[in-house]
Amino acid sequence: MSAQVTVAVVGASGYTGLELLRLLARHPHVRLAALTSREYQGRPVGQVFPALAGIVHQEFIPPDPEEVARRARFAFTAVPHRSALEMVPRLLAAGMRVVDLSADFRFRDPGVYEAWYQPHTAPELLEEAVYGLPELHRQRLATARLVGNPGCYPTAVVLGLAPLVRARRVELHTLIADCKSGVSGAGRGASLATSFCEVADSFRAYKVFEHRHTPEMEQELSLLAGEPVRLTFTPHLVPMNRGILATLYATLTSPATEAELYGLYEGFYRDEPFVRMMPPGTLPTTAQVRGTNFCDLALRVHPAGDRVVVVAAIDNLGRGAAAQAVCNFNLMAGFPETTGLDGPPLVP
Amino acid sequence: MSAQVTVAVVGASGYTGLELLRLLARHPHVRLAALTSREYQGRPVGQVFPALAGIVHQEFIPPDPEEVARRARFAFTAVPHRSALEMVPRLLAAGMRVVDLSADFRFRDPGVYEAWYQPHTAPELLEEAVYGLPELHRQRLATARLVGNPGCYPTAVVLGLAPLVRARRVELHTLIADCKSGVSGAGRGASLATSFCEVADSFRAYKVFEHRHTPEMEQELSLLAGEPVRLTFTPHLVPMNRGILATLYATLTSPATEAELYGLYEGFYRDEPFVRMMPPGTLPTTAQVRGTNFCDLALRVHPAGDRVVVVAAIDNLGRGAAAQAVCNFNLMAGFPETTGLDGPPLVP
Amino acid sequence: MSAQVTVAVVGASGYTGLELLRLLARHPHVRLAALTSREYQGRPVGQVFPALAGIVHQEFIPPDPEEVARRARFAFTAVPHRSALEMVPRLLAAGMRVVDLSADFRFRDPGVYEAWYQPHTAPELLEEAVYGLPELHRQRLATARLVGNPGCYPTAVVLGLAPLVRARRVELHTLIADCKSGVSGAGRGASLATSFCEVADSFRAYKVFEHRHTPEMEQELSLLAGEPVRLTFTPHLVPMNRGILATLYATLTSPATEAELYGLYEGFYRDEPFVRMMPPGTLPTTAQVRGTNFCDLALRVHPAGDRVVVVAAIDNLGRGAAAQAVCNFNLMAGFPETTGLDGPPLVP
Amino acid sequence: MSAQVTVAVVGASGYTGLELLRLLARHPHVRLAALTSREYQGRPVGQVFPALAGIVHQEFIPPDPEEVARRARFAFTAVPHRSALEMVPRLLAAGMRVVDLSADFRFRDPGVYEAWYQPHTAPELLEEAVYGLPELHRQRLATARLVGNPGCYPTAVVLGLAPLVRARRVELHTLIADCKSGVSGAGRGASLATSFCEVADSFRAYKVFEHRHTPEMEQELSLLAGEPVRLTFTPHLVPMNRGILATLYATLTSPATEAELYGLYEGFYRDEPFVRMMPPGTLPTTAQVRGTNFCDLALRVHPAGDRVVVVAAIDNLGRGAAAQAVCNFNLMAGFPETTGLDGPPLVP
Repeated sequence: MSAQVTVAVVGASGYTGLELLRLLARHPHVRLAALTSREYQGRPVGQVFPALAGIVHQEFIPPDPEEVARRARFAFTAVPHRSALEMVPRLLAAGMRVVDLSADFRFRDPGVYEAWYQPHTAPELLEEAVYGLPELHRQRLATARLVGNPGCYPTAVVLGLAPLVRARRVELHTLIADCKSGVSGAGRGASLATSFCEVADSFRAYKVFEHRHTPEMEQELSLLAGEPVRLTFTPHLVPMNRGILATLYATLTSPATEAELYGLYEGFYRDEPFVRMMPPGTLPTTAQVRGTNFCDLALRVHPAGDRVVVVAAIDNLGRGAAAQAVCNFNLMAGFPETTGLDGPPLVP
Repeated sequence: MSAQVTVAVVGASGYTGLELLRLLARHPHVRLAALTSREYQGRPVGQVFPALAGIVHQEFIPPDPEEVARRARFAFTAVPHRSALEMVPRLLAAGMRVVDLSADFRFRDPGVYEAWYQPHTAPELLEEAVYGLPELHRQRLATARLVGNPGCYPTAVVLGLAPLVRARRVELHTLIADCKSGVSGAGRGASLATSFCEVADSFRAYKVFEHRHTPEMEQELSLLAGEPVRLTFTPHLVPMNRGILATLYATLTSPATEAELYGLYEGFYRDEPFVRMMPPGTLPTTAQVRGTNFCDLALRVHPAGDRVVVVAAIDNLGRGAAAQAVCNFNLMAGFPETTGLDGPPLVP
Repeated sequence: MSAQVTVAVVGASGYTGLELLRLLARHPHVRLAALTSREYQGRPVGQVFPALAGIVHQEFIPPDPEEVARRARFAFTAVPHRSALEMVPRLLAAGMRVVDLSADFRFRDPGVYEAWYQPHTAPELLEEAVYGLPELHRQRLATARLVGNPGCYPTAVVLGLAPLVRARRVELHTLIADCKSGVSGAGRGASLATSFCEVADSFRAYKVFEHRHTPEMEQELSLLAGEPVRLTFTPHLVPMNRGILATLYATLTSPATEAELYGLYEGFYRDEPFVRMMPPGTLPTTAQVRGTNFCDLALRVHPAGDRVVVVAAIDNLGRGAAAQAVCNFNLMAGFPETTGLDGPPLVP
Repeated sequence: MSAQVTVAVVGASGYTGLELLRLLARHPHVRLAALTSREYQGRPVGQVFPALAGIVHQEFIPPDPEEVARRARFAFTAVPHRSALEMVPRLLAAGMRVVDLSADFRFRDPGVYEAWYQPHTAPELLEEAVYGLPELHRQRLATARLVGNPGCYPTAVVLGLAPLVRARRVELHTLIADCKSGVSGAGRGASLATSFCEVADSFRAYKVFEHRHTPEMEQELSLLAGEPVRLTFTPHLVPMNRGILATLYATLTSPATEAELYGLYEGFYRDEPFVRMMPPGTLPTTAQVRGTNFCDLALRVHPAGDRVVVVAAIDNLGRGAAAQAVCNFNLMAGFPETTGLDGPPLVP
């Protein structure tokens, strides 16, 4: 099949946009038709990002939704939340299908969004929008007009806990997600907090009990459980470029063996091309998923049989953003899910 | 006071030994009298460690306990566990006082040691040995002949949880310690697992439910609580040289405010020179304690008032090993606790 | 074209072997037919390298040349020098064509090899072997039975200086190559010198005037010049995983402008798919070639017009080893040179 | 001697200012009397820099020269060039002695300063100012009212080449300084170029032939030579916090052996407390001088005897800025040169 779909990347100059370009430039069914950047409009992509010299032969254009819609059928919007609230409805109105990588269309309940973000100016779209985690919402994605691409932390946490939560094997009010992220998760803007000397050779927690990814995790886990789930989430900053490792703690509702829970996970993720269960006795690293859409999982049961620790590893820019967005696009466009996403991890 | 005490470092060529040399070389009341290294015996320290050229003017000697005892009154033993079991009794028998940095003299119950390590060949010394955490055992340290210097992870975890546990403000069977360590914690030996390309730009968990520091934490927390404490401990490897950040999770036995718990901690650590409570609203980083004996602490209470997260930061080679050992030595020798330990953190 | 060539990787468990697997696993005309590893024989690749789980579905086999030749027509030998001396002749004798990534078949003059390495036991093959730098030896590569794949440093240095040297625009006896490499260049073995804490947050030079890549650079540059070239080469170790940056200094034989020399380079590398001249005013970084076969180049002329500085950036595992080897294979097998090598750089 | 000198740090909130605070807080003859910061005025130092909590017990004050002069006798000015031009004359006029860490008082010839920086508004002070490299200008420093503290790169380069240049053992017009710096050299401001993800796991050159430290090196080397020296200088950015490694290339005026040149260096730096010659066969690393005022040196002579490579390592914030400034202060105030500067390097 050599069909080519015209695609736009709106907000193509952040790290997520750059990763989208990396993946889409080699996607066999994609023609990059519009790349927008307010900051770099008029400049060739390969000049702004020398890595893409000779690979992407275009200029950035201004983020004008009508012009974007004239050029392309699908849009990836990789702009900050709030900007997406303005841009996405106009892209849809102009007939496009959209994968939005901001937080603006991830929530079913506008009230939750508004409690953590700001007033929502297009609540009618929330009903229609599909949360872009293929393992949970694959069927609805095929026909979606608008996909809310999951946050990086929620992707790792929800995939890590989903089998246990859906099977009701764990207590639903004492879940803990201790997560560690590479610095690219903070975006490409200059700030003291993410400058090299403030991050390198150091480690820290941030936004304890305050991170906006919390309600997103709770929404998806509650859907799986069929009742409200409460989660304690602590993000940390690791001196590395990419990667999220989520260490997840749960109390089992009744004793279990490791083998039993491995069986549960293997059943849940059977035939999933992008979830890899690590062999018993091993644990994932973020390096081993670098640049990919994989989510690697392992688990351990305490010898007492009452508590489980799950470890999930993803690439925050890959599975946590751009690669998952491309996967959602594949599903929407009817391409095999792995199209353009089969590059192996870059190690070391 | 210009009294000089003769001091030996047994096992002076690992990272902990090197950190001891860095601190002891400038300690105003210490004369380095014997530095042993099996590997480097006969070679000048400044040649093996160019960093110490012009600072330490000695040669490494073989680890012969009698010769060591002839030269010095105090010994720091920075050898692997098991080696300490052989060496320490002979140093004591020769009349020395010893701060042992291995795990061999940290446990009150030989059974616990033997369950996690190996048969204990000097169990009679366990009764006498003092666990070298000054904030908890300061008085006994003054007269100790043998100090079991705490492990790096237990130092951070016990200091981070002590006020809550002693006050019985948290449930004692669901404590979680999610800890992250720099690579120097693995020692100075060559191994694939700690080679640069296996660690850099990556993050991983290891030894889930299997790490030998677990019983050490449980021993000290149980002593504080007056009843058995059970803790889930997960260590992680951070691509940085030094530092441990412990993120500690506990369920409050009754609702509390952040201010109330800050008050509890400030009371517990009042007048402690090496514990710093971060101002409310801030969180510690490992960089801010680099090279020191500080333990920096912060805490957050969940808006629901039922759960607390404590964050503790130490330097694993400093407070987690060498600096704490020097602090214990100061207490044993009758010097002010901070002697030789007042160098500010090196940042960035 | 869907022709599939059977390919073996001999020595598939070092970093170069791993990078070969990453590239070959997605090469459209390659069928991985034999992967050897003495250390891991009998174990599934995806278990030894979790990054490749689900991607490479094979076991490592012992490095038996006859068995390898039975399974595959082409071999990449990624074994240490000396091992290649033993293995390669047997693979050739069994009818294979070979890209050897060691130093054993890079030299035309056995005397040079023997002065820097050891006695050469197959000197008759040196005449036949082609030095695998496509920009210089493309035509001979098409029919080569044996390719000596260039060293990482020589690749960057020779590509960086070739236009100036062939045009005789610089003095040939005062060339300087100040090169900086990521740690993966040292291979995957455990050693103190490449352990994380010895490398991270530090920088050093090594093997000044002693590095074995020197004669390789001099051979190729002398061929280009038509007379002996002498070069001062200093390698350095950078705390990063991948990448080489070569800063090259030369004295111009007569004054030149930057524009003139850019013209020289653009002419020399016209139509080369894997050499990118940076726009004037910019300089390459190693990140922008990560994971690729690119060599990015820039140059500056001193205002006085008498001296030039060239900066070359490559990925030591990509262009400096595995990707260049695949490129050579493409040329040998008659595939377009870029086949399987079009993945964009991974940034950040 | 317990004399206390009142000292001000003007511009105390950059990385250089922070390093000055680290060193001065423990200097036995210093009382920190005024710390200025425009950005943080009114805030406690320990709150802005948690590393200094419990160590420096003061608030930042505005940079008012009269108020500063009222409080202190000596000032360290760690403000950007141009700001120093305004501040320093007023501090001097108010009776202070000043170590200025900007470039504004490093040049003897105002024309050189103006060619690389901007118009000089206090040229009369240039005659009086002493270039603060103790090994070259120790005697004049004792009575200086104003010291121009050297740049980080010039410190490493000038110390590395001084013996060869003064002895006229090398050609003076073909010197090359290929220098590599940690990121703290770029200061503490937020910028995309020094953000973590732009620097980590990468390496680059910058400002080839354009860096403002060039004329400073040429000034000092010309003074040593007694005739104009011309130098090619290329700075590079290393993904590490601190440290400069300078690799220096020179052509010998007549053949020499390594032993002969080691003798030359040992003679030149005899009795210098802060220059360490590495033993023949070893090379310095930046880690081994971390946090100190040391300059570690090694050299290699090409087997042909006609070319020498010198390697110099310093800490850019230590010897390249704050520690050297404290050393200059010691000389000005009549304290032993090493006072407050004897802390050993922090490794790893």
